This record gives sequence, structure tokens and C-alpha cells, in this order.
Amino acid sequence: MLLCDIGNTSYHFYDGVVSYKKSVLDFEPKTLEQKVYFISVNAQISQRVASLENWINLEACIDRKNYYATMGIDRIVALEAISCGVIVDAGSAITVDVIDDGVFLGGFIFAGVRAMSACYRSISPALSYDFNFDLDLDKLPKNSQDAISYGYLKPFYSEVMAFNLPIILTGGDAHRLKKLFKNAVVDELLLFKGMQRLIQRLHKTLSNV
Amino acid sequence: MLLCDIGNTSYHFYDGVVSYKKSVLDFEPKTLEQKVYFISVNAQISQRVASLENWINLEACIDRKNYYATMGIDRIVALEAISCGVIVDAGSAITVDVIDDGVFLGGFIFAGVRAMSACYRSISPALSYDFNFDLDLDKLPKNSQDAISYGYLKPFYSEVMAFNLPIILTGGDAHRLKKLFKNAVVDELLLFKGMQRLIQRLHKTLSNV
Repeated sequence: MLLCDIGNTSYHFYDGVVSYKKSVLDFEPKTLEQKVYFISVNAQISQRVASLENWINLEACIDRKNYYATMGIDRIVALEAISCGVIVDAGSAITVDVIDDGVFLGGFIFAGVRAMSACYRSISPALSYDFNFDLDLDKLPKNSQDAISYGYLKPFYSEVMAFNLPIILTGGDAHRLKKLFKNAVVDELLLFKGMQRLIQRLHKTLSNV
Repeated sequence: MLLCDIGNTSYHFYDGVVSYKKSVLDFEPKTLEQKVYFISVNAQISQRVASLENWINLEACIDRKNYYATMGIDRIVALEAISCGVIVDAGSAITVDVIDDGVFLGGFIFAGVRAMSACYRSISPALSYDFNFDLDLDKLPKNSQDAISYGYLKPFYSEVMAFNLPIILTGGDAHRLKKLFKNAVVDELLLFKGMQRLIQRLHKTLSNV
């Protein structure tokens, strides 16, 4: 059995031990013979695997009414992994979702590290600095690099901390954000844990039929 | 007497009653005969007016050691207008500068409304929404437009409010931000007020010589 998170650029697989990626450009889904449970934000690939019997779309196991209409399936499935906490998924966007006592309270979307860096650069070459993740957030900056780092990171940091719930960092930039959120847990497999829960639920439902 | 704030794209004039702009592309500074006190972030124009006797650069009146080396002259001059408060200058970037009891405490730089909108759009067409400035910031969003609006505006709002000082909004997007910062003052002439203070100081110094 394999789990697979299909994104815009890659298939992200997890075999229960190791996770690895394959490009959507050259990977051929029908070369796999074992059962593959997947979620997908990539409509084209979803359609392609729909005809393959061993590829099972977990989206059907989601009770969408607990979330909102245009919410990405990856955010939803990550939330299925926990019952209490703030999930910060730091990819090209940073999504922040809050769940307490099993109830989804809502979430927001911020710009990812790379996009925000490009954004500052687009405003002025004078703002073209790398972010300083070692910044002292308790002190107002007095130089340009810290002024943009603080502008990007401090308000975001305070907002996430204000929920006063456990923080789980996931996504490609989780380790960079860990420098700020010192008590947060980094969990790169959170999405797959959510998928595992959905599979358990699916099997329970099937065995009750 | 005229005051002039020279930016990258325009000369912004103030005659004591009305403010107006002229493009740097076609305005000819030597056509003016009266005295013009100016500041400039535009090195090319600074050089051009340097040879004109009636154009007086107020940068010389600034005590730079109170600020930091790469800080824009426009931010500094706005700070010269007040002795206590948070100045939020919402242009292509949003600069936030804090001064208390006449002492500059530091500041930070965030992305302006247009740049941030382009930033979200660059991440994904699914994030291409206008910001909702009427958003209820006390409620976690449950739709995409509010999720990006909240991500951009709420942490920023909380950060600025946390200084617990009077807030002065200036710059092109001051009125949009006023929707969030309901108790803030909008002052589009703040920079010119700072310039007037510098001129007073200059005259005082000259009369003491």
C-alpha cells in the first residue's frame, strides 16, 4: 500500500517508512501495481488516475460540510490528523488552520517565504534581502534586512502564538519557521497521517456495510 | 515658497494650501523661480536640482545618528513631524515607524496592498482575490477571499495596535487602512509637516549664527 499526495508539480509518495517525490511530467501512474490511496489538487492527474482501479481517491471520505467550499484538500486532510492545534503548512503559500476539540475554527493564508521575498524585491531593489530567521522578535529593527524580516515574520508569529494551542509545522519551509516557533513540532508526514486516519475510517465504514 | 518630496516617479509639491504632483519624466525644475525646499529618494533628480540655487535640500538638516543608515529620507522626515506615535505610511511598501517621547524606537517594512495582491496571485490563480478591508478581524475566516485578507491584514493590524500609541496613517492607501484602524488619524500632509519643522529649525540655526 502506498499513500500519495498529488500536487501541481509532483506526486508525493509515502510507503509507511519513507516519503519520496516523482515529477508529474514523467511519472506514469499505471506502472504501480499496489493499492495507492491518494488526494489531489491537480485536476488533470486526478482524471488520469480515475480509470485505474488500484488508485483510490480519499476525497470521498471527507465530510466537506465541516470545512469550506474552496478549501484545498491538502489543508483538510492535514486537519484530519489532529483534533487540537494550529497547523502551519509552509509551502509556496503558508496556510494556517485552527482546530480545537475536533472542531475546525477557520484558517488563513499568508505568503510563503520565496513568494514574499520576491514580493519585497518587486517593490524595490533596496528591499532585496534574505529574511533573517534568527531575528530577535522582541526588538524593533534598526536596519533594512531586519526591517523586512520583522515586517514579514513578527506579525505572523504573534498571530499564530495568540491561539494558545499546540503548533504543528509542516511543508517545505517548516524547519525555517521552527527557528521562530521554538516550541512547535515539525511533522513532515502530517498529511499522510491524516490520510491514514481517513483509510481507517473507510475500512470501518466498509466493514460495517 | 514650495515644499517638494521627490520620489521615483513624481515631484510631490505642497504650497502650504494645496498639494499636487508632477511627473519626473517631463517636469523641468528650473522653470520654478521661488524657493523650493525638498527631500529626495531619487538620486538622478537630486543631482539635477543640486546646481539650482533656489532648490534647498533639507536632508542636511537631519541628524542621521537618530535613525539608521539605509533608512529612507521620507520615513525620517515624517518622523520629524511628531514626537509620539506609530506612523504607517502605506505606499508601494508599508513602512511602520515608532517614536515615543521624541525617541525613534525602530520600524519595520511590510508589503503594500498592490504588491501583496500580486504576491498572492503569483502563488496561485486560486488566490487572486481583492482584499476585503471590511473583514471582521475577530473571526477566523471560512472562505478564500477572507482567508487571504485575514492573512495579510490581521497580523499586521495586531502588530501596529500592540504599540498602544496614537496611529497616524499616510501614503496612497491610508484611507483603505483607515477601515481597519478606526481610531487612527489620516494625515496626507505628514511628510510636509516634517519638512516645515526642519525649515523652522534651519532658520533658527541660521538666525543664531
